Amino acid sequence: MVGGGEGAFIGAVHRIAARMDGQFQLVAGALSSDPARAAASARALGLDRSYDDFRQMAEAEAARADGIRAVAIVTPNHMHAPVAVAFLDAGIHVICDKPLAATQEQGREIAEAARRSRARFFLTHNYSAMPMVREARAIVAEGGIGNLRLVQAEYLQGWLADNVETKQAQWRTDPARAGAGAIGDIGTHAWQLAAFVTGRTPIALSAELSSMVPGRAVDDDARIALRYGSGARGGLWASQVAIGCENDLSLRVVGSKAALYWRLQDAERLILAPRDGPSRILTRAQDRSASFRTPPGHPEGYLEGFANLYADIAAIIRGDGTRLERVPGLADGLSGLAFIAAAQASAARDGAWVEVRL
Amino acid sequence: MVGGGEGAFIGAVHRIAARMDGQFQLVAGALSSDPARAAASARALGLDRSYDDFRQMAEAEAARADGIRAVAIVTPNHMHAPVAVAFLDAGIHVICDKPLAATQEQGREIAEAARRSRARFFLTHNYSAMPMVREARAIVAEGGIGNLRLVQAEYLQGWLADNVETKQAQWRTDPARAGAGAIGDIGTHAWQLAAFVTGRTPIALSAELSSMVPGRAVDDDARIALRYGSGARGGLWASQVAIGCENDLSLRVVGSKAALYWRLQDAERLILAPRDGPSRILTRAQDRSASFRTPPGHPEGYLEGFANLYADIAAIIRGDGTRLERVPGLADGLSGLAFIAAAQASAARDGAWVEVRL
Amino acid sequence: MVGGGEGAFIGAVHRIAARMDGQFQLVAGALSSDPARAAASARALGLDRSYDDFRQMAEAEAARADGIRAVAIVTPNHMHAPVAVAFLDAGIHVICDKPLAATQEQGREIAEAARRSRARFFLTHNYSAMPMVREARAIVAEGGIGNLRLVQAEYLQGWLADNVETKQAQWRTDPARAGAGAIGDIGTHAWQLAAFVTGRTPIALSAELSSMVPGRAVDDDARIALRYGSGARGGLWASQVAIGCENDLSLRVVGSKAALYWRLQDAERLILAPRDGPSRILTRAQDRSASFRTPPGHPEGYLEGFANLYADIAAIIRGDGTRLERVPGLADGLSGLAFIAAAQASAARDGAWVEVRL
Amino acid sequence: MVGGGEGAFIGAVHRIAARMDGQFQLVAGALSSDPARAAASARALGLDRSYDDFRQMAEAEAARADGIRAVAIVTPNHMHAPVAVAFLDAGIHVICDKPLAATQEQGREIAEAARRSRARFFLTHNYSAMPMVREARAIVAEGGIGNLRLVQAEYLQGWLADNVETKQAQWRTDPARAGAGAIGDIGTHAWQLAAFVTGRTPIALSAELSSMVPGRAVDDDARIALRYGSGARGGLWASQVAIGCENDLSLRVVGSKAALYWRLQDAERLILAPRDGPSRILTRAQDRSASFRTPPGHPEGYLEGFANLYADIAAIIRGDGTRLERVPGLADGLSGLAFIAAAQASAARDGAWVEVRL
Repeated sequence: MVGGGEGAFIGAVHRIAARMDGQFQLVAGALSSDPARAAASARALGLDRSYDDFRQMAEAEAARADGIRAVAIVTPNHMHAPVAVAFLDAGIHVICDKPLAATQEQGREIAEAARRSRARFFLTHNYSAMPMVREARAIVAEGGIGNLRLVQAEYLQGWLADNVETKQAQWRTDPARAGAGAIGDIGTHAWQLAAFVTGRTPIALSAELSSMVPGRAVDDDARIALRYGSGARGGLWASQVAIGCENDLSLRVVGSKAALYWRLQDAERLILAPRDGPSRILTRAQDRSASFRTPPGHPEGYLEGFANLYADIAAIIRGDGTRLERVPGLADGLSGLAFIAAAQASAARDGAWVEVRL
Repeated sequence: MVGGGEGAFIGAVHRIAARMDGQFQLVAGALSSDPARAAASARALGLDRSYDDFRQMAEAEAARADGIRAVAIVTPNHMHAPVAVAFLDAGIHVICDKPLAATQEQGREIAEAARRSRARFFLTHNYSAMPMVREARAIVAEGGIGNLRLVQAEYLQGWLADNVETKQAQWRTDPARAGAGAIGDIGTHAWQLAAFVTGRTPIALSAELSSMVPGRAVDDDARIALRYGSGARGGLWASQVAIGCENDLSLRVVGSKAALYWRLQDAERLILAPRDGPSRILTRAQDRSASFRTPPGHPEGYLEGFANLYADIAAIIRGDGTRLERVPGLADGLSGLAFIAAAQASAARDGAWVEVRL
Repeated sequence: MVGGGEGAFIGAVHRIAARMDGQFQLVAGALSSDPARAAASARALGLDRSYDDFRQMAEAEAARADGIRAVAIVTPNHMHAPVAVAFLDAGIHVICDKPLAATQEQGREIAEAARRSRARFFLTHNYSAMPMVREARAIVAEGGIGNLRLVQAEYLQGWLADNVETKQAQWRTDPARAGAGAIGDIGTHAWQLAAFVTGRTPIALSAELSSMVPGRAVDDDARIALRYGSGARGGLWASQVAIGCENDLSLRVVGSKAALYWRLQDAERLILAPRDGPSRILTRAQDRSASFRTPPGHPEGYLEGFANLYADIAAIIRGDGTRLERVPGLADGLSGLAFIAAAQASAARDGAWVEVRL
Repeated sequence: MVGGGEGAFIGAVHRIAARMDGQFQLVAGALSSDPARAAASARALGLDRSYDDFRQMAEAEAARADGIRAVAIVTPNHMHAPVAVAFLDAGIHVICDKPLAATQEQGREIAEAARRSRARFFLTHNYSAMPMVREARAIVAEGGIGNLRLVQAEYLQGWLADNVETKQAQWRTDPARAGAGAIGDIGTHAWQLAAFVTGRTPIALSAELSSMVPGRAVDDDARIALRYGSGARGGLWASQVAIGCENDLSLRVVGSKAALYWRLQDAERLILAPRDGPSRILTRAQDRSASFRTPPGHPEGYLEGFANLYADIAAIIRGDGTRLERVPGLADGLSGLAFIAAAQASAARDGAWVEVRL
């Protein structure tokens, strides 16, 4: 693991997710850019091998017979590219937190490294691994909603409604380290979720990016209109000042024959509304991806969804073809950066429609 | 009553709403533009006086000692203006269904007639008369959410997801009679609701109007970004092809200190989310408008909200100052037409930001 | 109308319900046992004819050519019987609020009067007239849930969690006027609702009646186990000290093939859960009783349900066979009194199983 | 681990829960009473040491310097006692699945073994470790609801609505191995949950136990009335034939000042309803037990609750006093067996009130 030292949020999540199904063991890390903190964090986690520097780690692990087979990158966004490139070049699989990078340029560097590496690159858009989301994708893919007409993806949080002094809040509101605000941190999740479920990516968008909290240097509210090549229309709303919303991700997908409604707050249920006849409440009893560990009604949530990704990645690394779910990777990451870039370009031109260049 | 003959929907609603609190009696009508249908409908309703023509009705009722004091206009949109002008000019109060008219030009004709008349003009934006909506307005007005930051108003229906042959569907999808599609029929409700609760009207908008059903001549999906003079941002989404949504009106209003969440499907509850501390579920036990007839927990809904307007209008006509709630009128109507015009202008210019000219 | 003078709750509800569909006109009343209050109330309501005494009213109205055809009885429970008998004997249809009477003895008096009268007797168990409740009954009746196994009916309120000084609270907690506490006031509603939907009445029960508020002379919490002749089992819980519950009536009915879930708080939806496959959210779009006035999604509630009864009663009185829904009457009332008697007998015997003697 | 071989459900749950926070390592097991199956299961799980027999395992592990410090018992109920006694006698901590045992006699054997052992005994009533449940307990304990008046605990499932052929279903419906049906398998969870939150145990109960599915030898529906020493009253309903309920555990606790409402389906929210004023939606943002890993709004559920127990047990074993939450143990288990015994005794006497003898 690179990043994820003391005080970090997503590092701990990755560790739990990797551990949940017992298919990964955390043995080495460069847990912080500060060597003292790196060492202390490694000790606290009982790591065998702690490195001061990620480049040193990539090299050393690649050289060991018992070196790591995969690295999890959980640093702030601007460090994803150098770390990913180092490990890909060392032939070590990369499991990288989203968004792919802080800039499209950095994204391209990762893409090139992935192309020349024999190792795989995975991006942890965890929500797309939740069972009812996977079922939603399957329904759309098999024609269950007819032609796609409308998409509405929302990711609303309220925790940045005021100036917040935590480490989490600080790098996320620093343009240099984050690259973007709400649109990058959570907007990319909504973007990926919509693309994952519908199987389609918008071709153009019109964006309004705002900073509601005085003095904030990045967007904390992003409203984006979407156009699909097929004529479908959509909206994406990401906000970190939506008081009352803790982590309210939702997706509405309407087709010509049926619609699907899903909300993270009620993640174990998926509403399937046919044009004629009553809506149905789908649960894991109807899910066909088997992306869960307990019978329906025993709520699984955020960590289990994250763990589904790790379990699938383990199967891919092992070459085990029994798990066939699509794990997000480079294409999702590049799409997310294209989304951010297009949104920022549109916002800079007062919301003009801008092509999404993948 | 003018309009509202057999097969009409909103005419029956107005009749029930007027009757519910026993303060109006329906005695005269020009219920259809087709004289035979007008007469038959009047007979079916037990009306004392049936007219073939609304102008004749306005004249005759104004001349009678026991003539009507108020008329309800429930025709298709393009007839609102001529009928309203006729009755206002006859000194008879007008209770008009929304939207105000099919065009801004017609709206101005009504406004002029209202200016020169001693009679009052009311517009039945009924949702703004529901108790928890009125409470939401009161909370915002007293500073309960701090500075307004975000508004999201949605009005989603699915009944026009396909071509529908009913009378209701036909005039609503005919540009000549409706003036606009979803944006006029339900978008104006969402627009008025947001303005009613927040006390503010956007100064500019960017619109995407779509016709999802092949062959439809009006918009059936409208997505509109909103800018407020204060820097607040918003969105309005009106759709009549959102399968699974029967009549799903909702409003989210976020301020710097708190947020409010309301949904017609769960109309008797209003969520008040303060920035710090748990969200509260407000019910009629907390409502201060007393806009209801039964104790909290005995669900009141659409018709009772509509009846609140009629009861308030009765109090205003009687000069009874005890009911102080704001009843929508000309200003709301003109605002709604300005909204439609701005949205259509923006959509025609590929979503360019257009000023809302009230 | 007898009863329902100033300060009363249910009298106003009956008036609105009767008026909503325009099929009744309130012309006469003995609105209070206090003549001065009766007269004042009648003036306030614009009644043509006000009586000091219900017997005088029954006689006088029966004698008039334009006398009332039906009377609504909205007095405290102990007065239902004398009033009902007087009007039935005068040949005037009776629309009586629930429960039927304060005692089984009084119930039998009404039953005898009904038998000898040409007039009809109706009991306003209003919840059974709500559209999704009627649809639930239809589903059970056509075998949609298989064999009945489990019933759970609950009616929970919190307004009597403390000593309350209102007129409403006072007679409801007075054994002499109410006959029983929660079990009579709201327990009979739950009892009737369960019987209405399932088509079956329990043959025996075991009851625990409690008075939670110090000094209260009637039960304010009633928990009752139910046995059906078929082997089905059930529970009924009525409470008036359940803080947080405003008027929380719910019904769960489980069969061998499917189950039904309904809750007044969400009255427009009925969950139909088949043993295999996803649950369905039925709405008025699926209701076959047509017991409503507006399209699905325009919430109708308590008053509309009550008005359904009045509309059906009007149809029955007119001899109009087009409305076929079952309107509660004497049998429901006698069953409710048998339920109260059995529950009180069981509670007196420490919860022993007691036969319900209809 | 003892039990939990291939095809088992709860064994896998324990393994994930133990692993989630990285504080336990699974190294040894007697995973099945069938030696071949035990060996195969151990291989599949990568266990270092597999035993044919639990007694052999207790002995051998106690003798090793690197022997296990705690064992998880996940066998059918009738095996809990012999296994627990063996390990307690060997000085190894026991983490036992609920219910404690198949009979009170067996429960007493465990209690005696625990008394004479230096090892600790824990019982995995996992629901009591979920954050909002712990917060509910804290609210009651600090007087937040006033005097306890009403308790309603329900645990409803539908998966045994028909005869089911799985291994899970088979031992659960076999009196010899399960000891009881729904009342033992899920009723004890509801019983423990109610006691955990309220801090009180009923002194007497009246039970109705039914077998709804033809040919079933144990109860599949249990309805129990509860009396508390303080005068509070309650109900417990456990059913495995409640079609439409996947795993629907809920608790309602009403006091003289406030009430609490919680439901596993919506486990991250706890409704706190004060007698006066609006209800509050408490989330993990209000939870004081810190029994979670992610920020509020990132849904945690069944497995995380289970893992909370394991994390707390690890802290206790380590002698780390920083985690102070109460972990269920012997007292909860004996109480659960007393509950089953009293309910079966009451049911055998036609629902007579029976004292709960702890």
